Amino acid sequence: MPRYRLLVEYDGRPFNGFQAQAGQPTVQGAIEAAVLAFSGETVRIAASGRTDTGVHALGQVVHVDLAKTWPPSVVRDALNAHLMPQPVVILEAEVSVEGWHARFSARERRYLYRILNRRSPPALLQGKVWHVKKALDADAMHEAAQRLVGLHDFTTFRDMQCQSKSPIKTLDLATVHREGEEVLLSFAARSFLHRQIRSMAGSLVEVGLGRWSADDLTAALEAKDRKACGPVAPADGLYFYGVSYEDAEAK
Amino acid sequence: MPRYRLLVEYDGRPFNGFQAQAGQPTVQGAIEAAVLAFSGETVRIAASGRTDTGVHALGQVVHVDLAKTWPPSVVRDALNAHLMPQPVVILEAEVSVEGWHARFSARERRYLYRILNRRSPPALLQGKVWHVKKALDADAMHEAAQRLVGLHDFTTFRDMQCQSKSPIKTLDLATVHREGEEVLLSFAARSFLHRQIRSMAGSLVEVGLGRWSADDLTAALEAKDRKACGPVAPADGLYFYGVSYEDAEAK
Repeated sequence: MPRYRLLVEYDGRPFNGFQAQAGQPTVQGAIEAAVLAFSGETVRIAASGRTDTGVHALGQVVHVDLAKTWPPSVVRDALNAHLMPQPVVILEAEVSVEGWHARFSARERRYLYRILNRRSPPALLQGKVWHVKKALDADAMHEAAQRLVGLHDFTTFRDMQCQSKSPIKTLDLATVHREGEEVLLSFAARSFLHRQIRSMAGSLVEVGLGRWSADDLTAALEAKDRKACGPVAPADGLYFYGVSYEDAEAK
Repeated sequence: MPRYRLLVEYDGRPFNGFQAQAGQPTVQGAIEAAVLAFSGETVRIAASGRTDTGVHALGQVVHVDLAKTWPPSVVRDALNAHLMPQPVVILEAEVSVEGWHARFSARERRYLYRILNRRSPPALLQGKVWHVKKALDADAMHEAAQRLVGLHDFTTFRDMQCQSKSPIKTLDLATVHREGEEVLLSFAARSFLHRQIRSMAGSLVEVGLGRWSADDLTAALEAKDRKACGPVAPADGLYFYGVSYEDAEAK
């Protein structure tokens, strides 16, 4: 039974998040319905990570096991045909190596957070960025972000609903830089807590606005208290950017 | 009576083009309604150029004459508040110099045409790009595009409905280059004929696909016959990029 590894791009706006829920439009539901329409098989797909309502993906990775063997390009094109006009697209498909799992084999997840930092709201990027009117100091945000890198108890930056067993995680990378009217935040870790990126992004914006110093951010982290978190950034600006797998399994 | 010059960004998808039409959603109608809501004045705005249904703008310029004098930043912010949630945004507002006219003072219009050139359709850029599946040779397109630069009779690249008195225009600039998965076409001229950009873009894609040579493009231009045009590119990928005015009037 071949396992297909799919690289997926989606616009999160029309979906109630990634994970399948009865009677709700979800990314998982859309892909599983396309698989059924294409192959006649009722499947349950696995993903490298779930995304919340309104969160986008540039490089989500999922796997699907199919009884029949198809050329991967046929799987990709057929799923895309059945997914249309929904904004979910299979960018690549390949047969995975034995034992590979979209979720359990993942070694690092990467996220991008886009802020449109100008006076006027977005017209062409509605729902695709967080609009922050006041000027952000991206350099100060970048400097402060380094306080979050490493092994920490991220309780402050974890949603109350988070089901992860431990709030202790290692953040591998956090960068902030400006590109024209946008301020772009990048994060990488083996795994993240629920709403961790949006919690960190919102708190870093407090730094960018000059309301918090880098020391205030450290204090918030060390408080290990959800109430110490800054405002949580909206889903609009968040993109699941990509996943790394072990060398032998990576494409 | 001060004349306000407005720099405007919009997503063309929900509108039946720029120009006001009774009972139809248009960009002009949206801006004029916002002016009425803000100032109580019923106005007719002028624009540097009209755009068709589904065509976007990054830098459209319009003017509006108001009886009362307001700080330009108040005009910008108030119009944006009244325009929401429609995807039309005033990026900048200023009081223009005496005698300046958004349309008649314009010296050069610039357009961008975006092609997503990959196998899979767009998810995040639905309606914002033309999706061309087969690999395009952007260098060949750029080389051929130079055949269009200069003073020509553009009858081949002009919509049958075009109301311009003459098909003779000077194309100042035509460039094509690849940026990752996108092929970007840029055009500049004092003015364009109706559907000229989309007609040229569609014909250049024939070159990029290897169906036409640069000589075929020259032959199409010299035929001065609408039937010699390649397929007209869709509105989705077209952006009104910007306008240049005479030095003394430019911002």
